[in-house]
Amino acid sequence: GYTSGAIPDYQFSALLMAIYIRGMKDEELLNLTRSYIESGLTLDLGEIDKPKVDKHSTGGVGDKVSIPLAPLVASLDVVVPMISGRGLGHTGGTLDKLESIPGFRTNLTVSEFKAQLKTIGVAITGQTGELAPADGKIYALRDVTATVDSIPLIAASIMSKKLAEGIDGLVLDVKTGSGAFMAKLDDALSLAKTMTKLGTLYGKKTIALITDMSEPLGKTVGNALEIVESIDILRNEKPDPKLLELILMLGAYMLIIAGVENEIEKGVKRLQKAISSGKAYEKFLRMVESQGGDLNSLEKHFSLVRTKLTLEVTSSAEGYVAEIDTRRIGLAACNLGAGRIKKEDKIDHSVGFIIFKKIGDSVEKYEPLARVFANDEEKAHWAAAALKSAFKISETKPSKPPLIYGIVDETGIRKLY
Amino acid sequence: GYTSGAIPDYQFSALLMAIYIRGMKDEELLNLTRSYIESGLTLDLGEIDKPKVDKHSTGGVGDKVSIPLAPLVASLDVVVPMISGRGLGHTGGTLDKLESIPGFRTNLTVSEFKAQLKTIGVAITGQTGELAPADGKIYALRDVTATVDSIPLIAASIMSKKLAEGIDGLVLDVKTGSGAFMAKLDDALSLAKTMTKLGTLYGKKTIALITDMSEPLGKTVGNALEIVESIDILRNEKPDPKLLELILMLGAYMLIIAGVENEIEKGVKRLQKAISSGKAYEKFLRMVESQGGDLNSLEKHFSLVRTKLTLEVTSSAEGYVAEIDTRRIGLAACNLGAGRIKKEDKIDHSVGFIIFKKIGDSVEKYEPLARVFANDEEKAHWAAAALKSAFKISETKPSKPPLIYGIVDETGIRKLY
Repeated sequence: GYTSGAIPDYQFSALLMAIYIRGMKDEELLNLTRSYIESGLTLDLGEIDKPKVDKHSTGGVGDKVSIPLAPLVASLDVVVPMISGRGLGHTGGTLDKLESIPGFRTNLTVSEFKAQLKTIGVAITGQTGELAPADGKIYALRDVTATVDSIPLIAASIMSKKLAEGIDGLVLDVKTGSGAFMAKLDDALSLAKTMTKLGTLYGKKTIALITDMSEPLGKTVGNALEIVESIDILRNEKPDPKLLELILMLGAYMLIIAGVENEIEKGVKRLQKAISSGKAYEKFLRMVESQGGDLNSLEKHFSLVRTKLTLEVTSSAEGYVAEIDTRRIGLAACNLGAGRIKKEDKIDHSVGFIIFKKIGDSVEKYEPLARVFANDEEKAHWAAAALKSAFKISETKPSKPPLIYGIVDETGIRKLY
Repeated sequence: GYTSGAIPDYQFSALLMAIYIRGMKDEELLNLTRSYIESGLTLDLGEIDKPKVDKHSTGGVGDKVSIPLAPLVASLDVVVPMISGRGLGHTGGTLDKLESIPGFRTNLTVSEFKAQLKTIGVAITGQTGELAPADGKIYALRDVTATVDSIPLIAASIMSKKLAEGIDGLVLDVKTGSGAFMAKLDDALSLAKTMTKLGTLYGKKTIALITDMSEPLGKTVGNALEIVESIDILRNEKPDPKLLELILMLGAYMLIIAGVENEIEKGVKRLQKAISSGKAYEKFLRMVESQGGDLNSLEKHFSLVRTKLTLEVTSSAEGYVAEIDTRRIGLAACNLGAGRIKKEDKIDHSVGFIIFKKIGDSVEKYEPLARVFANDEEKAHWAAAALKSAFKISETKPSKPPLIYGIVDETGIRKLY
């Protein structure tokens, strides 16, 4: 009714506020999500006779996981129909990152999307207005009525889009820490429980990993820089160990959800082999080619990052990195041009940061913490100042944060690390 | 902002729902009420050098108290600037009742209102769009967003209009029981506490009486019928004892709030004398005359009630009146034409009921419980059936309900009977 205009904004916003304050029962949330889904088309991938599994992350800083993960899993004969999003607030977006590759199209039609899934087994494209259009209209109303930050409304928004994709199962990467929307672990667990329950009630195998976002993920933040890092992962060239581990864990759970593997350890081994053999990178190249991306540009991939200047951010003290205000780093990247401040802003794909130091690392005085890639001197200095203030240096060595805080499925918290 | 249109409906309705669910702190409610008041004009009655006190009732069935009370109190040199309302749902409205008197105007201009207060000391008129216009706009939005039934929003709505009148003090009559909006005593106490606190924070002496609405008030329900009963009160002709007691108690508290009396008992005696001496009725006649009402019509006042037919509603059993569904009686009067079902409906002032039996009274089989005055045979029978079903007859004698349940002022519940 709201999507068609039969229910006016002022009544729907009153409902949103009631949900925001009171929460929802399981059945209410299932019905809400179902009505989101039924407001539009549902992809029917029944003609593809393979397991179809997707992954969704709640968003973070430096989170380029989808880009290597989707072709990696697809190289093991699991179809990955990934409908992804753009940057939101301090977080980056998979589509923005992929558009760093000259020619790469993120606006596939439904038939192009289906065709590519049949031939290559993987496609990453943008949300079309045809899937769950209620979500887009309701999100815009939430944005102007202070009701964005509501676990059932977040869950309905995420899950409706994913459940309309025609998948068999879903692995959720729910982030927690200073760079996540759910900074507190309790909130992340609560969102994970709600989403896995919702997926299961809807008849899809769903599992959630609660993972760390107390520091940027991997070595890079920024669109082209993250494409470079994603390619390095698939080429097996000096991968960041924490980023690689996360990709392997999420991938292993995708294989289990798909029913092609039954042990995490075995899944991880198959994924490692797919990388070392070049099979995963090959799948990535086929996806890029099929979506119109320029394969030549990937040869000397660092050439994607052409900025007028770079700036080193150094530590003003000797000691250890104790904390990183990851949200601040995300916002600094956004202000530098890697994201949008206003909806209509154009993204500068080449700008961003390399992060040299993470929590628990030792630093010398004047040792570089990060490098800024920028096309505007003033913005570069602002970003450098923001980066510097985001690092808290202490004299005592803190412990490194874990990668995975817990595993949540429809039965609740399965494992808490 | 909302009154001017700067804040859209959909944001204000989200706020209304948040208030509905969460309630408000004292300071928040004071600020909301202040902004209601400051959305329009405030009457300045400073040029009238006498205490100015008003009474407000939360509404009920047969509640004609304002009509005799305002001139009664004004006859003792306390100015009563009463801005009153129309019937709402199952309850009657003072303005609708007064308009039973041919020629009586309830749309005085602000200058006419002031002039009459100066010369006669009492005026009862309708809400102008100039006082607290925010309330009218917000009430309409509450009506379509399921947020009417909220104690702080009810309190802000009532108190803003009263506080904009330029009064020194206010006596509230908060109804509880089957014919009241706050059917439960706890809710009535809560509303009374909120309103007295609000009035006091705004610098006005405010006191609330929690009074009974578990049966119709007085002998009559219906506009002209209630004018007849009001005149009988002022003429000291067989007054209903409970109705008279309520008028005397509210009047005595008005005298105390006005600072012209310090003991309830003494106040009651002065009011009784003002009635028996004819002073109060004389004040009523001056008010009616000044507002254009036809005094001749009041001589044989029962001639105001000219209906095509009357119908007796009789008891089908012997016993005692145990309960009265007063809300049902109010709705029956409304359906008969005494109130509006749709906003644009015209009222039939002559229709209504005389109620012969109250809770605790004994009844013989076939003894009349009430009489229906109607102009339409079918409607008359519907009303009679509704009245009959509203009376619950039992074999054992129940106790009569008290008149006053409690007295509430800014310090909380002062007295609970």
